[in-house]
This record gives sequence, structure tokens and C-alpha cells, in this order.
Amino acid sequence: MFASAELGHGLDKTQYKLAADELRQSLLNIQYQLKERGDFPVIILLGGVPTAGRGQVANLLLEWMDPRHIATHTFSSPNDEERARPPFWRYWRILPPKGKMAILFGGWYSGPMWEQLTARPGSVAYEHELAKIIHFEKMLADEGALILKFWLHLSKEQLKKRLKKFAADPLLAWRFDESDTWFLDHYDEVMRSQHDLLQRSNLADAPWRVIESTDERYRDITIGKHIVEAISHHLERQSVRQNRIDAAPLMPSIDGLRLLDKLVLDAHVSKTSYNQQLAQLQERLNALTRLPEFKKHSVVCVFEGMDAAGKGGAIRRITAALDARQYRTIPIAAPSEEERAQPYLWRFWRHLPPLGQITLFDRSWYGRVLVERVEGFASRADWMRAYGEINDFEAQISSANVIVVKFWLAISSEEQLRRFKEREAIEYKRFKITEEDWRNRDQWDAYIEAGSDLIERTGSAIAPWHLIGANNKYHARLEVLRHLCERIEAALAIPVKKRKA
Amino acid sequence: MFASAELGHGLDKTQYKLAADELRQSLLNIQYQLKERGDFPVIILLGGVPTAGRGQVANLLLEWMDPRHIATHTFSSPNDEERARPPFWRYWRILPPKGKMAILFGGWYSGPMWEQLTARPGSVAYEHELAKIIHFEKMLADEGALILKFWLHLSKEQLKKRLKKFAADPLLAWRFDESDTWFLDHYDEVMRSQHDLLQRSNLADAPWRVIESTDERYRDITIGKHIVEAISHHLERQSVRQNRIDAAPLMPSIDGLRLLDKLVLDAHVSKTSYNQQLAQLQERLNALTRLPEFKKHSVVCVFEGMDAAGKGGAIRRITAALDARQYRTIPIAAPSEEERAQPYLWRFWRHLPPLGQITLFDRSWYGRVLVERVEGFASRADWMRAYGEINDFEAQISSANVIVVKFWLAISSEEQLRRFKEREAIEYKRFKITEEDWRNRDQWDAYIEAGSDLIERTGSAIAPWHLIGANNKYHARLEVLRHLCERIEAALAIPVKKRKA
Repeated sequence: MFASAELGHGLDKTQYKLAADELRQSLLNIQYQLKERGDFPVIILLGGVPTAGRGQVANLLLEWMDPRHIATHTFSSPNDEERARPPFWRYWRILPPKGKMAILFGGWYSGPMWEQLTARPGSVAYEHELAKIIHFEKMLADEGALILKFWLHLSKEQLKKRLKKFAADPLLAWRFDESDTWFLDHYDEVMRSQHDLLQRSNLADAPWRVIESTDERYRDITIGKHIVEAISHHLERQSVRQNRIDAAPLMPSIDGLRLLDKLVLDAHVSKTSYNQQLAQLQERLNALTRLPEFKKHSVVCVFEGMDAAGKGGAIRRITAALDARQYRTIPIAAPSEEERAQPYLWRFWRHLPPLGQITLFDRSWYGRVLVERVEGFASRADWMRAYGEINDFEAQISSANVIVVKFWLAISSEEQLRRFKEREAIEYKRFKITEEDWRNRDQWDAYIEAGSDLIERTGSAIAPWHLIGANNKYHARLEVLRHLCERIEAALAIPVKKRKA
Repeated sequence: MFASAELGHGLDKTQYKLAADELRQSLLNIQYQLKERGDFPVIILLGGVPTAGRGQVANLLLEWMDPRHIATHTFSSPNDEERARPPFWRYWRILPPKGKMAILFGGWYSGPMWEQLTARPGSVAYEHELAKIIHFEKMLADEGALILKFWLHLSKEQLKKRLKKFAADPLLAWRFDESDTWFLDHYDEVMRSQHDLLQRSNLADAPWRVIESTDERYRDITIGKHIVEAISHHLERQSVRQNRIDAAPLMPSIDGLRLLDKLVLDAHVSKTSYNQQLAQLQERLNALTRLPEFKKHSVVCVFEGMDAAGKGGAIRRITAALDARQYRTIPIAAPSEEERAQPYLWRFWRHLPPLGQITLFDRSWYGRVLVERVEGFASRADWMRAYGEINDFEAQISSANVIVVKFWLAISSEEQLRRFKEREAIEYKRFKITEEDWRNRDQWDAYIEAGSDLIERTGSAIAPWHLIGANNKYHARLEVLRHLCERIEAALAIPVKKRKA
């Protein structure tokens, strides 16, 4: 990957002057078009050999374009907030919205770049990290983002020369630190693993561009031109995106029998028994969340199911057992403007709890394969790939000690009708029922179909679905609490005999 | 993945009769359309619980359609021919050509399915195998193939019942063997890992379809309908494939400087020295290929470079040192009709040497990113993804003990012109020069560009490019032989001091 960037590329001053004047104008124009159209973000990722000038390139881009629409981010050791969450959380939070740009120093390549020096290519840690990166970039590209990855290259000789020069010049000495000397000492070894990393993450939708950086003029003009060209191409590409070919359909079962049709929805629990068990379970949950071990985990609860299935009521029975500083309830409705400008998983990543905390999602990322599928808000290709993306997402956060507890509350169509009517009749419940609920009810069958598919395709050992018959609210709430307690106990490795009844 | 296939799906006889009559007609129609259009192959992969009826389904499909255009393949232990080659060779060789179908029992899922029982999900072996499968299916799908993956499911109870019944009935006893009993004994464990495998290989372009197989009528009609629906959708999809959006371009270097421009092309070697060194190197190579350790490896040599760069001459200097039974030379020109009906890598897979043998490719799979790119035979999206596919291919065969030795023979434009003229002037060399060579020469620059890109993006530690200045034929031939010997010595772990000069 690096041979072409050790050829002695260069521009003379006249060539540079000519090119720079034209380039500045093009960069501004293209940035303006990007903002006007506002249909995709641009992520500029700068990696490279130390002292190759990542900072200079970023400064120049900010100078040549309108800096109000470009964010820059460096990634040194994660801060407290970041350390308390899954590793990729720090990248999700800074993704630029559609129409804007972000310049990332190293980005998600800063982790494995250094890790792999101990965990070499081929090791489980390295392969795992690489797979995560590739899934992430693939998802971003599928969501329309333009990812521009630059590796600013210097040969070993050049790096040595620069470090010598910097060390000798007090005005430049601030530009390097000890890790740069370390890099030089391990140059061959580091570059061997970088080569593997770059080549294997060299995706058709997010290729690496290796830039010789010995001559600053050549480096700056090359990067600028790449940016202009890539954005113009992407603008064209996005405008024909509508016409793309869709994925194959999922054929419904030929005998009309679906997973969610077969659940037992009814159960009987007396009020006395309910009150008694509820108190016990809430006490059990509360005790669990106050254990010291709990601080090494966090909990994400997902509630899905038909309208009026009792999601809100179940959630309140959980939160009643918790300290108010320890949890957040996130109701998911139509995305905000800010959320629409991001990949669909972004709004869920931002709400991931830190360690020791609980987030309760009243509806969730499953909207992608539920309402967005049924209403046609997402194309079939988009929701078909979402099953895999969601599985990746849940696997990723689970491996960072997030306990993912997913509930599907199931009621019958008749029970829903009864509850709708009740809501309309009772003054203080009337806010809970809208025209939209009635419209969704007309789509009952399509939702059962989509629900059955998603349960089938996203249940897993680490993040199983708990399917709960919810015609009886008492039963449903107790079941929810029981499963939640059991999942936390399992994650905390509390021996079964020590668990409360 | 399996819950929906334990619901008790079924059809009664009347429903079946009605559906079957219609289905048979549709299957024949769609098979006919597939053949007429001839623009993609259909791969039907049958996995599942033992006794679920994979054989019955295959028989029925052969009965309902025209069996002349459907091949069936089982994969038990690899035979001698297969064991001597990389593991996936057995799948490549049986890929159906465009317009035809193949039914595969287990296919590439038969290996990891069993391996993972010892190598569990999460282990390096398992993850590695899974990645290989996913790359393979992704490549097939990108090449236009339709992949239909069916899992024929039976619950543990059902399996137990069947095995009992088969054991009791002499007419059915042949249908099961000991491994089926083993499966039943380990049902829960096996299904846990199958779940992981199916979910993670559930690609948007090649999703799994899990079919409840207790009721044969339901099973057969469901699979038949899936096939009809998927093929009709794919026929539609392929016809709009031309209009799809292309990948972003690779911008040429702004100062016009390219890797291949900078090679030192000239060298001087006297005829006496050449003859002497040639004899030594040929002897060294011959000795290497006769070592017992050599039988555990095979060698693939790739020769690329401009027309008249001396590829044929260099190849003949290698083969002169070898036993004629030990090598094959494969000249690569435009693909044959048979080859055009397959993914572009197919024609190279078929020529992979068994262990102990050598294949010399005079031009190679790099045509995809060279002539096909320059002449526009492949779309940009197709050749852009080819870098990754080629890297995967070479990594895969290298890990199966294939030594991949790649040569780029570089001559100057002036030297090419001189050789072209010489060929035209000398009677017995005239067959070597055609109109096409002159046309290619007009594209010199585009080839240098494409060549520089491919060397940059496909060189790796396991399969490096050897760039050889070839204006002097003597020098080029000696270098080729030297590199070849050194690579074999390194692979055979022959200590440097024991190597010949």
C-alpha cells in the first residue's frame, strides 16, 4: 500500500499556486452544494506516520472551507464518560449530520493501530476489532455517508530526518513527543501491521488513499482534489439512489401461521397475588441494582409490541423499584430533525447508559424492521440489512457489559380493541389514543408478520427475546420483572440458590 | 431462527393438490425463463436436521423441473483430488453456469457445521471459517448469482419420533445412520451453534429460509414457492442491473508520477554470465521441486506486464528446469464461453495445482483490474471490489500451502516498440504480434496507471509482487528464477545457509 507514496512526488511553487487558487474555489463550491442538498455527511479520516502533517492538513481545510460546517475530533484516551460505555460510542456521538463534514484524527483506526502491535494480525483481538470496523463503515456507507480515508505517508528515512530537524528547532519541538521516537524505532514492524490493516479495510465504498507527505504542496493539493472529486461523485450517486434495485422479498408462510399467532396470551393472576409478587420482585430488582458488581454492567431494556399492549405500565413497574438517578426512560416516536440527519442507529447509541445505569426504551431500533417496514419508510434493501446491523449492534454492546433485555408484549386484536375503547371513554386516558393508533390497527396483520420475522431473525443467546402474553396486565408486568431480575442475576453470575424466589 | 419452524405448520391433501399443480407449472416456466435469459446461475443449498427430507426435496425438484438443467452435489469427505487443493476448490468446481441450477446438500456449511462442535463460535477457527463463507457468498451475489439457502427444520421431539420409526421399519432403515443418533443426543448443543451460524450468515443478498419439515406437504410447497418467487424477483433485478450506481473513481496522482514509472528497467548481464547463472538457478529450482517437503506445497506463479515484456521467455526458463509431469502453463486470453458463464475467479480456481505441482499463469486474475478496467469490460464497482476479492483469494490459497509468486515484468515504451518491430520483421516471431497489441500500446498510460494501482493494492506479505526491470531479458529471467527459488526455500523453511548460491 505504501510503495507509491515513496516515489518522491512533488509540486513546484508555481504549480502549487495555480492549483491552490482553483482548488479553494472548488472546495467552497462543493461544500456549499453538500450543505444545500443536505442528503449525506462527509467523514474525512486522517491517519498516517507521525509528523506527516495531519494537523496541517486539517488546518488548511478549515482555512479553505467554511469552518462552521466542519467539526474536527481527536481521539486520545477515552474520558470517563466514554470509558463507561461500549468502545464505539465515542465515534457514534461525533458523527456529522447530513450536509456537514467532520475531520477525524485516526478515528476508529487509532485503537487497533496500537493494539495490534501487541495483538498481531491473525490474533482473535485483532480480527474482532477489524470486523467491527468493517461492519461500521459498511453500515455508514449503506446509510449514504461518504467516508474518505487518507493515510499520510512518510518513508522511514523521511521520518528520521524530520524528527532530527524538529528536535533541533525550538519552534518545532512541540510538534513531536516520545511516541514519535517509538514509532521510528519500530517503523518496519508497525508498517507491516498497518499494511495488513489498510489493505483489509480497503472497501470499495470506503477505499484508503495513501498520500506521500514529504512535499507539503503535493500532499495538500492531492488531498483537496480527492475531497472535491469524491464529493461531486457522491452527489451524483445519491441523486440516483432512489432507483437502485431492491433486495428480495421475505415470503410469508404459505399456511398463514406465524410465530406471534401462536403465543398464549391469557393468564390469570389475582389482584392479591399480583400485589404480593410485585412487591417481592421490585425488592429483588432494587437489591440487585445496589450490588457493587452491578456497577460493572449496564442494562438496556427494549419494549416492543402492539399499541396498548401495556409497555408503559410495565416500564413504570420497573422504574418504581429504582433510584431515579439510576435510570432513564426513552420513548421512541418519529425521529427528530437532528436524528433524521444521522444513521438510524445513532439515536439509540446516544442514549446508551453508562456502567451502573439502566435505559428503558419504549419502542426501539426495531422500528426499522417494524413500522418502517410496514409503512414503507425504509426500502426493502434497507430493512433487510437491518437484521444483521442490529445483531452486530447488540453483540457489540453486550460484549461491553451491557445486559440487553428485550420484551415483546403480545395482546390479541380483541383485547386491543377493548383497550382502545376504554381509552376513548375515560377522560384521563384519552391522551393515550390517537388517529394513528387506529390506522396502525388496520395494519394488524402486517405488524404480526414483521414482528414474527424480527423475533426470528434477531433472537440470540446474548440478547434473547422474552415473548410475553399480555392480555392480562398483572401477568405481563410480573413476567417482565421476573425476566429482568433473572437476566441481571445471570450476568452478575449470582448462583441460583442465592437468588430470591 | 427456529421458533417459527416449530409451530406445527401444515397443509391438508386438498390444499396440497391444488398448490402442487400450480407450482409445477410455475417452476417449469421460471426454469425456462432462467435458461432463456442465461444471465445468472441459481444455487439451492439444502441444510437441516437429519431425516428432515433434504433428499426428498431434491428428488421432487428434479421431478417437477427439467432435470437436464439441474445438477446435484453432496459433500462427504473430500476425495484425493480435493484434499490436494485449498478447501473451497470443491465448491468452485461445481458452481452452476449462468442459466442453470445446482442443488447442494450442505454445501460450504457442511464443514463448519461439524467443526464448530469442537471449535465453538468465537474460536479463531470458527470465526475464520465463517468469514470465508461470508466473503464467498458476497462475491457470488456481487457476480449476480442467486443463492437460496434452506434449513429444513425438525424439533427435537420430531427427530426422536422419526428415528424411532425408521429404526423399526426395514423399508426406511437405510435412511438413517449413526451420525443421526449422535445428532439427536447432542441436539441442543448443535442447534445452539447452528443458530449462531445461520444468524450470522443471514446476508441481505443470501438470507436463510428456515422451513418446518414435519409436514412434507407444507415443506415441499413452501420450498417450491420460495424458488419461484426468488427467481422471478432476481430476473427483474438483473435486468435493471445495468443502471446501478457505480463506485467512486480512483483519482490519478496529480503530478503524474506512478509506481511503475519509477522502476529501474535496464541492467547489464553478459551472455556468458547469463548462461552460467541460468544453469545454476535451474539446477537449484529442480533440486527444490524434488525435495520430499515440496510435496506438501504447491506453487502458483503469476506473470503480468506489458505485451512483449518477456513473460513467455521467462516462463520457458522455469519450465526447462522442471519435470513435465509437475507443471502446467496456463495462458490467459479472453474467457471462453464456459468461463464467461461463471464468476471471474472461476477460471483460475479450476487450474489451481494439487500439492506437489506448479501452475504458471501467463496473465492471470489481475486481468480484472487491468484489461477489464482499461477497456471498460468491467464496471468500476466490479473492479474496485476485485482488489478485496483477489486479496481474499490469495490469502485463502496461501493458507492452504499454495506458494503465490507474482511477477510484474516492466519494460519501457521504447523497448516495447523495438520488440514489436522485431516481431514483425522476423518471420517466426510474426505470430506473436497482432493488431490488438498495437491497440493496447495506444493505451500505455492507462495500463501503467492500472498496473500501479493493482500492485499497490494487492501486494502483501504472503503474496508480494516482484517488480522486475525487463528491458534486458537475461536480467529479467535470472531475477524471476532467483525470486522463485527464494520463495520456495522460505516456504519450505530451508535455512539460509543451506540454500544454494
